[in-house]
Amino acid sequence: MNAFATPGPALWSAQAHMPSVIGNQLVITRGEGNYIFTDDGRRLFDGTAGLWHTNIGHGRAEMAEVAAEQMRTLETYHVFGRFLNDRAVELAEKIASISPIAEPKIILNSGGSDSIDVALKLARRYWQLRGRSEKTMILSRDLAYHGLHAYGTSVAGLDFNREGYGTDSLVPETARFDTYDIEKVRQTVAEIGPHRIAALIAEPIQGTGGVIPPAPGYLEGLQQIADEHDILLILDEVITGFGRTGHWFAADRYQLHPHIVTMAKGISSGYSAVGGIIVAPEVWAPFYETGAPMYRHGTTYSGHATSAALALKNLEIIEREGLLGRVQELETVLTAELAALSSDDRIAETRVAGLLGGIQLRPEFSAEAVTDDMVAQGWIARPLRGNVIQLSPPFTTTDDELRGFVAAAVSSLDTVAASSSTPELAVAR
Amino acid sequence: MNAFATPGPALWSAQAHMPSVIGNQLVITRGEGNYIFTDDGRRLFDGTAGLWHTNIGHGRAEMAEVAAEQMRTLETYHVFGRFLNDRAVELAEKIASISPIAEPKIILNSGGSDSIDVALKLARRYWQLRGRSEKTMILSRDLAYHGLHAYGTSVAGLDFNREGYGTDSLVPETARFDTYDIEKVRQTVAEIGPHRIAALIAEPIQGTGGVIPPAPGYLEGLQQIADEHDILLILDEVITGFGRTGHWFAADRYQLHPHIVTMAKGISSGYSAVGGIIVAPEVWAPFYETGAPMYRHGTTYSGHATSAALALKNLEIIEREGLLGRVQELETVLTAELAALSSDDRIAETRVAGLLGGIQLRPEFSAEAVTDDMVAQGWIARPLRGNVIQLSPPFTTTDDELRGFVAAAVSSLDTVAASSSTPELAVAR
Ligand SMILES: Cc1ncc(COP(=O)(O)O)c(C=O)c1O
Ligand SMILES: Cc1ncc(COP(=O)(O)O)c(C=O)c1O
Repeated sequence: MNAFATPGPALWSAQAHMPSVIGNQLVITRGEGNYIFTDDGRRLFDGTAGLWHTNIGHGRAEMAEVAAEQMRTLETYHVFGRFLNDRAVELAEKIASISPIAEPKIILNSGGSDSIDVALKLARRYWQLRGRSEKTMILSRDLAYHGLHAYGTSVAGLDFNREGYGTDSLVPETARFDTYDIEKVRQTVAEIGPHRIAALIAEPIQGTGGVIPPAPGYLEGLQQIADEHDILLILDEVITGFGRTGHWFAADRYQLHPHIVTMAKGISSGYSAVGGIIVAPEVWAPFYETGAPMYRHGTTYSGHATSAALALKNLEIIEREGLLGRVQELETVLTAELAALSSDDRIAETRVAGLLGGIQLRPEFSAEAVTDDMVAQGWIARPLRGNVIQLSPPFTTTDDELRGFVAAAVSSLDTVAASSSTPELAVAR
Repeated sequence: MNAFATPGPALWSAQAHMPSVIGNQLVITRGEGNYIFTDDGRRLFDGTAGLWHTNIGHGRAEMAEVAAEQMRTLETYHVFGRFLNDRAVELAEKIASISPIAEPKIILNSGGSDSIDVALKLARRYWQLRGRSEKTMILSRDLAYHGLHAYGTSVAGLDFNREGYGTDSLVPETARFDTYDIEKVRQTVAEIGPHRIAALIAEPIQGTGGVIPPAPGYLEGLQQIADEHDILLILDEVITGFGRTGHWFAADRYQLHPHIVTMAKGISSGYSAVGGIIVAPEVWAPFYETGAPMYRHGTTYSGHATSAALALKNLEIIEREGLLGRVQELETVLTAELAALSSDDRIAETRVAGLLGGIQLRPEFSAEAVTDDMVAQGWIARPLRGNVIQLSPPFTTTDDELRGFVAAAVSSLDTVAASSSTPELAVAR
């Protein structure tokens, strides 16, 4: 291994170009509320809530106490076969009580990618069981992000995540549809043939694709296509679930009735690795009837007791502190702040839905350079595909912090614009 | 939903036939050392260590304290791009220091199925990058269990887990090979063509398939095939890793040099949802060189700080309490106890490797009935495929507990044998 002057730490980071990242890494060692701290003593506003998940803020003592108490009592016991643990049962009941689907069943697991894989497997299994053996295709939106296990990779609408494995998609029975225009979606469905389609999967608001709220009528159109053609509608609410849009679920906000909802992130605010799916009676019933076959799925940490206890406490905090209402207020602030940028001609577009914002820069200005400068100034933001700056702070953000965060983006844009204005370019303008 | 007299709890259990399970469920509410307790006050010896993972026993106060302390400091921060957290870095270094692979890189995630999907994706990505575009096939052992995300489902050697989705395997480029006879494996590899094979994946000791230790020379044969034919060898050490065989890894016990090792379970003893892969320099180097492409993978909870802190403490406990040595002693006890059953003609075979034991019953005696009776008597065991009783207690089990556990299996076998002896059958014998 002498070929590598600095092979760096043993940890292979996530979605990282290691040769560029090594020597340029930020080590986070502490978190408190809406702020995190690095090993070299810097304090940073967590303007992305980590990866859109730290909704209740960092380092809550109450969460620490729950973890310790549960672990002392029962760190976990699995929920395979006849076995259950009380916390997993309780969490499933809680989710059912706030679910956008009536009388649902809940499968728990350890993250968003897990939830995608089981949702898509279940969709296919369901149609096989119903005798519709041709229904194997899963259709997803262009620019979609559905995690990176094998099925999520297969349905990636961000092509760079799907490609590089030697075939068009690891699981071949997939196709993408237009992310903006519902008429084009209808065409794609007609071309492929509804009798071959098991499910449509969609993020109600696309996150990693660049914070893209739905065009008016788009989600309602997906619902209609699904209903008309015996196709399951799967909403990926890994980001939007548990309050990020000011409602428990985006399905509530947009009045949809999906067959399956995937969830993770906000369910525990990232205090523990929890995810899962919410399944409608139409889909679970055939596996619950006498004489039904068993749905053969399960992961060791499905229903992990300590993870479930933390998720329960997180949901309690969201309710107790009125954070859904607070997100609605913050959406108003964010909307106003971003609207005020409409005259800035370095900015192509701004977008908001819930406490999810995106500032799309014109191609001359790099979102990556801007967010790097923001981090240097103490404000964490992330560049997303499409030259977009991601804004998604914790629900506990104050109005002033949110205004300061948007102002920091503009200020870093100024810095980047100034430094990239070489004399020639300045003249050319 | 009036069709269901008792639709049961909202939680859809794992690998469970819900119509049979509802009304017959055991709710675990407390764990202490090698014992767990139900909501109706029963105390059960955890003879399977949950799902082969509670290696240090249940409810350790020391683990609870670590969780609380870490959560108060920093519940987590992600490790995407430039970001790291100190605990994730530390855990990766620790794993590297005990790894069977020299100078490895470590990708962390949240469980065994996660680890399989990233290992298999990486194997394919690696060969594409190396320009060997035909190398897309993943070969796995008959009876293999590699979790149940889409890739694990695709390479399942237990056919019932792979089937039911409308195609032979979700990711089509897969095939199975013989689980006992290395010459047959050579034939399969020759038939498919080594130039098409990206990787062989194998549990060194098959777990869910029925506790099947490797035939002499079998694993060495896999290594040879891989080395001869430019095929990656992936060892699935989700069960065997971190001490279950009396060594840190089965690769140490059997002196193998895999390209990728998958891990989960024992890394945290199930106190937190952690998994990951250990990657050899041959495989990671092409992604670390200047000008290399980025390996596009990552999950939100990769390197979760609290999960990592718990894994670190778990590994410290294993070292401090000398549990690897203790597993070797327990293997000796288990070997002797099971050898003593050789004259019992109701038993087809017994198998042991490390603190993993299987008692295979003759077809007239149901392992499921026996383990149900064992649970009723206070001893948790699980039936595995092939009419096998799984024995895999925590590393903290005493010799007497282990002897008692084997005796309980025999006693429950007596009960089942007695109750299934209808008069006619008794005469027929
Ligand atoms: C919409 C969506 N789905 C799925 C995932 C995958 O979740 P995880 O990273 O927990 O596997 C993500 C993660 O960002 C996501 O944003
Ligand atoms: C050998 C092996 N691989 C992978 C897995 C999957 O791990 P998990 O259930 O954590 O996803 C298991 C689980 O039992 C296993 O035994």
